[in-house]
Amino acid sequence: MNDSYLQFVNSPFGARLARSVGLPRPEVLRRYRADRPEFEGLVAIGGGREPRLFDALANLVASIGVTSVAHGSAGLWVPLATRHGLMTGRFEAAEPGSPGRLAALLFDASGIEDSSQLAPLYQFFHDTLRSLGKCGRIVVLGRPPQACASPRQWTAQRALEGLTRSLGKEAGRGSTANLVYVAQGAESGVEATLRFFLSPRSAYVSGQVVSIDAGGAGDTAGAHAPPAFDWAQPLAGRRAVVTGAARGIGASIASVLAAEGAHVIGIDIPSARDALDATMRQLNGTALAFDIAAPEAAAQIAAALDELGVDIVVHNAGITKDKTIAKMTDATWQSVIDINLSAQERIDDALLGAGILRDGGRIIGVSSISGIAGNRGQTNYATSKAGVIGRVQSMAPSLRARGITINAVAPGFIETQMTAKIPLAIREAGRRMNSMSQGGQPVDVAQTIAWLAHPGSAGVTGQVVRVCGQSLIGA
Amino acid sequence: MNDSYLQFVNSPFGARLARSVGLPRPEVLRRYRADRPEFEGLVAIGGGREPRLFDALANLVASIGVTSVAHGSAGLWVPLATRHGLMTGRFEAAEPGSPGRLAALLFDASGIEDSSQLAPLYQFFHDTLRSLGKCGRIVVLGRPPQACASPRQWTAQRALEGLTRSLGKEAGRGSTANLVYVAQGAESGVEATLRFFLSPRSAYVSGQVVSIDAGGAGDTAGAHAPPAFDWAQPLAGRRAVVTGAARGIGASIASVLAAEGAHVIGIDIPSARDALDATMRQLNGTALAFDIAAPEAAAQIAAALDELGVDIVVHNAGITKDKTIAKMTDATWQSVIDINLSAQERIDDALLGAGILRDGGRIIGVSSISGIAGNRGQTNYATSKAGVIGRVQSMAPSLRARGITINAVAPGFIETQMTAKIPLAIREAGRRMNSMSQGGQPVDVAQTIAWLAHPGSAGVTGQVVRVCGQSLIGA
Repeated sequence: MNDSYLQFVNSPFGARLARSVGLPRPEVLRRYRADRPEFEGLVAIGGGREPRLFDALANLVASIGVTSVAHGSAGLWVPLATRHGLMTGRFEAAEPGSPGRLAALLFDASGIEDSSQLAPLYQFFHDTLRSLGKCGRIVVLGRPPQACASPRQWTAQRALEGLTRSLGKEAGRGSTANLVYVAQGAESGVEATLRFFLSPRSAYVSGQVVSIDAGGAGDTAGAHAPPAFDWAQPLAGRRAVVTGAARGIGASIASVLAAEGAHVIGIDIPSARDALDATMRQLNGTALAFDIAAPEAAAQIAAALDELGVDIVVHNAGITKDKTIAKMTDATWQSVIDINLSAQERIDDALLGAGILRDGGRIIGVSSISGIAGNRGQTNYATSKAGVIGRVQSMAPSLRARGITINAVAPGFIETQMTAKIPLAIREAGRRMNSMSQGGQPVDVAQTIAWLAHPGSAGVTGQVVRVCGQSLIGA
Repeated sequence: MNDSYLQFVNSPFGARLARSVGLPRPEVLRRYRADRPEFEGLVAIGGGREPRLFDALANLVASIGVTSVAHGSAGLWVPLATRHGLMTGRFEAAEPGSPGRLAALLFDASGIEDSSQLAPLYQFFHDTLRSLGKCGRIVVLGRPPQACASPRQWTAQRALEGLTRSLGKEAGRGSTANLVYVAQGAESGVEATLRFFLSPRSAYVSGQVVSIDAGGAGDTAGAHAPPAFDWAQPLAGRRAVVTGAARGIGASIASVLAAEGAHVIGIDIPSARDALDATMRQLNGTALAFDIAAPEAAAQIAAALDELGVDIVVHNAGITKDKTIAKMTDATWQSVIDINLSAQERIDDALLGAGILRDGGRIIGVSSISGIAGNRGQTNYATSKAGVIGRVQSMAPSLRARGITINAVAPGFIETQMTAKIPLAIREAGRRMNSMSQGGQPVDVAQTIAWLAHPGSAGVTGQVVRVCGQSLIGA
C-alpha cells in the first residue's frame, strides 16, 4: 500500500541524495482533488494537414476553461479560436533550462492520409515536448484506422500508435501520452474522453489507444441519446452496482462513482458483510451480501435490483490463487475461472435478460495486465482475465442497439494489500518497470472506470484500457 | 552477435558455477538443421469437448511422422489415430524427477463454447507440462473468437490467449507456447503453420496468436488454390525479392528462402553492392543495387522484375537513427519514416499495380517490437514500424481476391551487428527480459518469414507475428 522509495526520494534529503548519486526519482503524480482546479495552465495545439477535429477541440478548450497556444503546425487554430471567443496565443519555445509551462500538448492528426504527411507530428513534438510541465498530458487525435478509406490512410493513422507510445516513454516526469481515434460523425462525443485524458484523473493511464465511435454522438436524435448531465455530477440519478466493493479497489470504485453522483449498490461475500456495510454507509449506498460463486447468486442479485433497475455494472470482484499449473489443484483452477469470469457472464445474462440494466447503461469489467500478457503462476487468473477481454469484444456489437457500452480496464501494478504481500524484489520490479517508475493507486483504476461509466462516453465501447503507467510488460 | 553469458553458463564449468550460485541458465535453443530430423519424439494430444480439429491433427501427425500419446482428455484420439493408421499410445505421467520425454503438447480447444468448459485445458497441462522436454513445443488450437456464434463461445476462445501466454512463461528451458485459431473451413490449411510451430524453425517464436482463415483452404477449387509443393523444397520455382539483403537479417532471410528452393533477388543500396553481390553469388541469386529512398526506385525495381514477375516480397530494408524527439533533426525523422515505411508503400504499389507480384503471392514486412510498444529515442522508428502493421492490416482484405497474403514479423532483441553496439547494461536487459532469457538470431526471423512465404500459408494474412522469445516488453 506504501511505496516508501517514492516518498523518500521526494523528501528534501532524499531528493538531494538521489540527485547526487543518480538514483531514479519517480514523480509524485498529481491526482484529482475536489478542492483544486481540475484543468489549468496552457494547452499547446498542433495539427497536420486538414485538421478535422479543431472545432471539437475549440469546444473542449472553451468548456474546460484553459488557454490555448497555437504551434506553427496549427495555423488554422488562431482564427478558429477567435471565432469561438477563446483567449489564445502563439506557441513560443521556452528558454533552455526554464521549467515547462505547458500543461498539455494536443495534436490533431485526423486529416493525415499518407505516411509522407507525418512530418508535422515530428515538428510539433520536437518543438513543444521540452516545454511540457510535470504530470503533463499528451493527446494525439486521429481517425480509427479500420474505418479509413484507403490503405495509405489506414497505415498513416495506425503509425500514430508507435509515435504516441514512444512519446509516453520520452516524456517522463509523470506525464502521460495517449492516442484517441475519433470516428467520422463522433466529433461531438469527444469531450468526456478528452477531459479524462487531460485531467489528473488519468494520472496512471498512459500509452493507451481509445476509439470513439458515433454510437453515442451520432444517435443524439434517437432513443438512446445521452441524457443531459452536469459535468460536476455526471452520474447524478444513476444507480451503479459494484461487485467486491467492501475493500481495496472495489471500495475505491464505489467511492469515486458516489462522488460523481451515483447511488452505489455494493456487493460482496457474506463474510465481508461488516466491511461492506461500513463502506456503503459512508457513501449512502446499499449493501448486498451475496457470494457470486453460488449458482443462484445471479438471479438473487437481479431480484434485489429489479424494482429500480441499474445503469452501471462494475465487475470488480476477483480472486487470485497463484501456482504453476503443474502444482495447481483442480479446485484452484476452477474457482478462479468461475469467480473472475463465469460469474460475470451469469450476472450480466440475468441483468440483461430481464431488462434490469437499463438502456444507455454501462458494463465495465476488471481485466488485468496478466490477462493481456499472461503470467507465470497465473494460468488460471490470466485465462479468466483474457476471457474478460473476450466478453467486452464479443458483447459490444449487440449491446449497441440498446445504447449500452461494455468495456474493460486492465490494471497493472496497483498498490493494494494484495501487492504489498509480493516479495520485495518482484514488487520493486513491478513498481518501477513502467513510464511512471511507480505503482498506481486504487483510485487510478476507479477514475478510469468512472470515465467509462460517464454518460458522455457513449461512443466508447468494446475496448480495453490499461491502467498501468505504461508498463513495459506487455504481451 | 555473440551472447558470451549464454555460452559461458552452458560450458561445463559455467553450468556448475551457475547452479551453485543460482544464476539463470538460458537454454541453448535447438534450431533447424538440414542434417537432423526436423520432427522427432512423442507428441501428447489433449482435447476439450467435441475437438473438431482431431482429423487435421491426425493428418499432421501422419505427415511429420511422429508418435502420439493421448491424454485422458482426448478419448476420441485413439480410435481416430487407429483409423488413420497411426502408432499411438496413452499418455502416462513421467516419474517425478525424470527428464521430460515429450517433444510437444497439442491441445484441441476448438469445441469449447463456454468458460465453464475450460477445465480440460487445466487437466491436460497440469498432467503433461512436467513431461515436456527441453525446447519443447506447446500449441493450443481454437476457433477465431470474432467468428464465434455466441458471446460465451467468443469469450471462452479468447480466454485461451491468457492461458497460452502464461504457459509460455511457465514452460521454460527453451520451450515455446503458441495459440493457433483455425477458422471453420480452414482445417485442411493448418499443416504449414503447425509444422512451423512444432519445428525447431520457430525456436524464438513464443506467446504468439495466429489465425488461419479459409482464404486458402476454402478456395481450393478456385483460381488461387495453392499449387502443389514439396515439403522439402516448398519454394521451388518461386521468385523472392528481399530488400536490404546484403548483410545481417536480410542476408539470413535470403539464405533461408534460397534453401527452401526460391530464386532470390536481393536488393540493397549501391554502396553495399560488393556485399550484396557476394551474398547473392552464394545463393545463386540475383543482385539489384537500388536505393529505395530514391523516388524513382520503385519504378526501376518493377521494371527490373517485370519480365519474370515475382511471388514473394520481403520488405526487410530499414534504418535506425535514434534520438529523443526533442533532439532529433527533421532530416532524421523523415529518412527513417521514408525508408522504413513509405518506400514499402511505393514498391508494393508499383509491383501490385503492374501485376508483377503474381496471384497467390506473399508480401512480408519487417516491423519491430518498437512498433508495437514504442521506445524511448525511437519516435521515428516506432512510428514507421507501427505503420508497417497498419499496411498489413489495411491491405490484407483487398489482396485476398488475388490469393495474395500480407503479414509482418516483429523482431524483438536479435543478435546483430546493430544490437552488439548497444551499451552492455541495456543490451543485457533486452537479451534476458524474455521467456528464453536470450536474444534471438537472424535465422529466427528468416525462418518465420519463410513460413509466411510458404505456399501452405495461404490462410494466414493480415497478421503480425513477433519473433521475440516472448519478450516481456509489450505495449
